[in-house]
Amino acid sequence: MIELLSALPTWQPALRGDPCAVATVVGASGSVPRPVGTSMLVASGTPAPHVLGSLSGGCVEGAVVAAALDVLESGAAASARFGYSAEDAFAVGLTCGGEVEVHIAPLPAEVLASLAAHDAGGAASAPGVPCAVVRRLDPTHDGAGGLALLGPAECAGGEALATALETLFPGAPQMAARAAALVEPIVGRGSSAVVAVATEGACELRELDGRGDVGVRRGDLGGVVRLLVESRLPAPRFMVVGANDFGAALVPAARLLGYRVTLVDARPAFAAQERFACADEIAVARPHEYLVAEARAGRLDARTAVAVLSHDPKFDIPLLDAALRLDLAYVGAMGSRRSHEQRIAALLEAGHGPVDLGRLRSPIGLDLGAVAPAEVAVAILAELVAARHPGAGCGPLRDRRGHVHAARPAAPDPQEVTPRREGEEVVSPWT
Amino acid sequence: MIELLSALPTWQPALRGDPCAVATVVGASGSVPRPVGTSMLVASGTPAPHVLGSLSGGCVEGAVVAAALDVLESGAAASARFGYSAEDAFAVGLTCGGEVEVHIAPLPAEVLASLAAHDAGGAASAPGVPCAVVRRLDPTHDGAGGLALLGPAECAGGEALATALETLFPGAPQMAARAAALVEPIVGRGSSAVVAVATEGACELRELDGRGDVGVRRGDLGGVVRLLVESRLPAPRFMVVGANDFGAALVPAARLLGYRVTLVDARPAFAAQERFACADEIAVARPHEYLVAEARAGRLDARTAVAVLSHDPKFDIPLLDAALRLDLAYVGAMGSRRSHEQRIAALLEAGHGPVDLGRLRSPIGLDLGAVAPAEVAVAILAELVAARHPGAGCGPLRDRRGHVHAARPAAPDPQEVTPRREGEEVVSPWT
Repeated sequence: MIELLSALPTWQPALRGDPCAVATVVGASGSVPRPVGTSMLVASGTPAPHVLGSLSGGCVEGAVVAAALDVLESGAAASARFGYSAEDAFAVGLTCGGEVEVHIAPLPAEVLASLAAHDAGGAASAPGVPCAVVRRLDPTHDGAGGLALLGPAECAGGEALATALETLFPGAPQMAARAAALVEPIVGRGSSAVVAVATEGACELRELDGRGDVGVRRGDLGGVVRLLVESRLPAPRFMVVGANDFGAALVPAARLLGYRVTLVDARPAFAAQERFACADEIAVARPHEYLVAEARAGRLDARTAVAVLSHDPKFDIPLLDAALRLDLAYVGAMGSRRSHEQRIAALLEAGHGPVDLGRLRSPIGLDLGAVAPAEVAVAILAELVAARHPGAGCGPLRDRRGHVHAARPAAPDPQEVTPRREGEEVVSPWT
Repeated sequence: MIELLSALPTWQPALRGDPCAVATVVGASGSVPRPVGTSMLVASGTPAPHVLGSLSGGCVEGAVVAAALDVLESGAAASARFGYSAEDAFAVGLTCGGEVEVHIAPLPAEVLASLAAHDAGGAASAPGVPCAVVRRLDPTHDGAGGLALLGPAECAGGEALATALETLFPGAPQMAARAAALVEPIVGRGSSAVVAVATEGACELRELDGRGDVGVRRGDLGGVVRLLVESRLPAPRFMVVGANDFGAALVPAARLLGYRVTLVDARPAFAAQERFACADEIAVARPHEYLVAEARAGRLDARTAVAVLSHDPKFDIPLLDAALRLDLAYVGAMGSRRSHEQRIAALLEAGHGPVDLGRLRSPIGLDLGAVAPAEVAVAILAELVAARHPGAGCGPLRDRRGHVHAARPAAPDPQEVTPRREGEEVVSPWT
C-alpha cells in the first residue's frame, strides 16, 4: 500500500473517518500483472463502494471488492487465492495463467486517519524521501498496532528501525530486533517482500520469497509471524541539459517515470521559462561544472540519468567528458550524425577509450522516427527503460516469440530505478 | 509562434505591457532541429532579457537574442541566416550541418496584449480546438495589422477564412481571397508553411515549400507578399481502457504526446479514483459500447489510438472486435502470451482475418523489458510513435548507420498526430 500513501489525504473515506479494508497481494506465482505489496483500499459507499488502487486489471478485482466488503462487515481478516483454470477463465480468474494470494484485513478508521495525517504534507511519500510500511499479516494484530510507517531515519536501519518495529511487537523487544534484522536488507534495496519472524528463537528466522512459496511453506509457519515489508528508495535523479523545446518535453515525461528531474542550462533567460517550472530543480550553471559539483557532493549515483539536449559543443563536450568518468546509469546526447561524429572525435582526443564511448548513447534514443519534441522524449525514455532490462530486444513485443521476458536475467539489476519487489522477475504484465 | 500562445497570458512582458520581438524559423534546409514556424519571443530585461520558446538547442539562440534586441531598438524587422561552416562550428553555427533562415520582427505591446487576452481562457490553444496564426513577413506590415489569429470557424475555410484574412490586406479583399485559397489547404492539414501571395494577379500565386527554397527564389519575389501560416488540428484521441495501475500511468503520459485522453472502465468505483482526474474525459461504460457509440457519432478518426489494459476478456474481446472494424491509428491490448493466444482465437472466431489481426498490437508495446506501470506506458507510447513513422527500426539510434531518418518516406503520414509542418521530412533533430 506504499503506492497509495500520497492519495490518502484526499480520499473521501479517510476524510470522513470511515473504516476500510485493505486487500494486498502477498504471494504471486507464474504470470500476474502486479507484484507483492500491491494494495487496494475498499470502503462502503452508495451507489458503489469506494476503491483506492487496483490489484490487476479487472480480472479478479470484482471478487476482491466483494471479499473486502465481507471483511469490513465481519471485522475478521481473510485470505483468498485467485488462479487460472480453463473453466473459470471467463468468470473470475487470471487468464494470464498466474496465481495470486490476496490478504484482506480491516483498516480501522483511526489507522487510516493517522496514515492520511502523517502524509498530509506529502513528506512521507515525496519522491526524494525513502519510506517503508511494515504490516503484520496475522489476524490477531490487524488493529492500530499492526502497522508501522517508517521514515528516512528508520529506513537507515539499526537501532532506529528496531525501535520503530516495537510498535508491532508490544512487550517483545527481542522479536522486534529479530524483525529488524530481516527488514533492514529489504528496505536497503528499496524492495518489498513477506518475511517470517520466529516467535521462539533466531534459529527459525526465514525470509519467504514472495513468489508463491508462501503457500507451500504454510504448514511450517507455526511459531512465526508474517510481516509484509514495502519500501522505496529516494527517487533517482535525471539531469536534463538544455532549456529548449526538447528539454521542455523531456522534463515532465521523466518525472512520470519517477525521476527527480533537474533542468540544467547556463542561460538564465532560457532556464527561467515557466514551461520548466515542473522540474524538481532548475540549475542555471555551466552543465559540466554543475555535474562535477553534484558528483563531489555525493548527490549522484549509479541510478542517475543524464540527457544532453543542448546542441552546443561548447557545453556538450566538457559535460560528456565529465559524465563518462562517473558511474551513471544512462548518458545520452542529442545531435545529428555529423554532430555525433565531431563529438566522438573530441571525446577520443580527451582521452576516452572504447569502453567509455560504448557507454555513451549518441545519437540519443531509440529509432522511432521521432521528430516532435514529445516524440523525442518517448524515444529517449524508451532507450532508458530498455537499458535497465538487459533482455530487452526493443522491437515490437508482438514480434517476439515465447515468453516476453524470457531473456531477462534472474539477478536484480542494480540500476533498476523502480522500487524493485521480490519475485519481480516473474511478476510482469506480459510474461 | 502557435506553440507559444498558451504561455502568453502568464509571460511577464505580456503582463507588464512591454513590447517584444518575435524570431521565427521561416526557412530550413539540411538538418536542423526545429521546423518552419518555430518561434521565440524576446523582450528587454535586467539582468537578462526575457525569452519565451526556443529555436533550436542553444547553437544559434544567443545570436538570435542579440539580433532580436537590435530589432526591438530599431523597430525594423530583420532576417538572418545561420548555417554550418567548419570554421565557425564552435562559435555561432549549426554543427548539425543545417541552415535556417530566421525572420525577426517587432511585436507591438498592443498585439502581444491582444494575443495574450485572446487566449487568457486557453480557448484558442486548448488541445481540442483547431487554431491557426497567419503573419505577414514583409517589413511594412509588422504592426497590429500584420497578424491574424484564426479560431475553429475560420480554420474551416471558405468565406470565414477570407474575411478573417482581410485584416492582413486592408482595402484589398481580392488579395485576401487569393491568400485564403493558399492558406486553406495548409490549415486543413494542420501544418505550417510560408506562402507567397501575388499582388498583381492570380497567375503568379505560388506556394514556397519552406525547405530553403525561399532564399533561392528570393529574386523573383517582386509583386508578392510572404505569409507565414501555422496551424494545428484538434488533438487526436486516445482511449485508455482499464482503470488500473497501468491506465493511471498511461493517461498522463499520453497527454504529454498531445492526445485528448479518455479513460474508459465499466466499474464506477474504479473509474472515480482521483488518479484518473487528469484524463480529459472519463467514460463509465462498457468499453465496446462506448467505442461503437463514439464512432457512430463521428468522434473517432484515423488518428485515434486505443490501448486495452483491462485484463478481462469479458470486456476485451468485444472491444477489440469493434475496434478492428474501424479505421484507427493504433489498437493494442495488454496481456500475457497466454491471454494473447486466447484473444487471437476469439477474434478469429468472431470472423477477423489476418489483415485485421495484423493491425492488432498484442501483446502491446515495444520489448523494453518494462515491468512497472510507468515503464509499460513508455513501451506503449514508443510503439505508437514508431507506428507513425514507417522507417522506424526501433533499435537504439546509435546502432543505426547513416542518416537517422533515411528510410522515412517523403510522403506525409496521414496518421501523424503532431501538427505536421512543411519540410518536416528533413527537419529532424537527428538526421
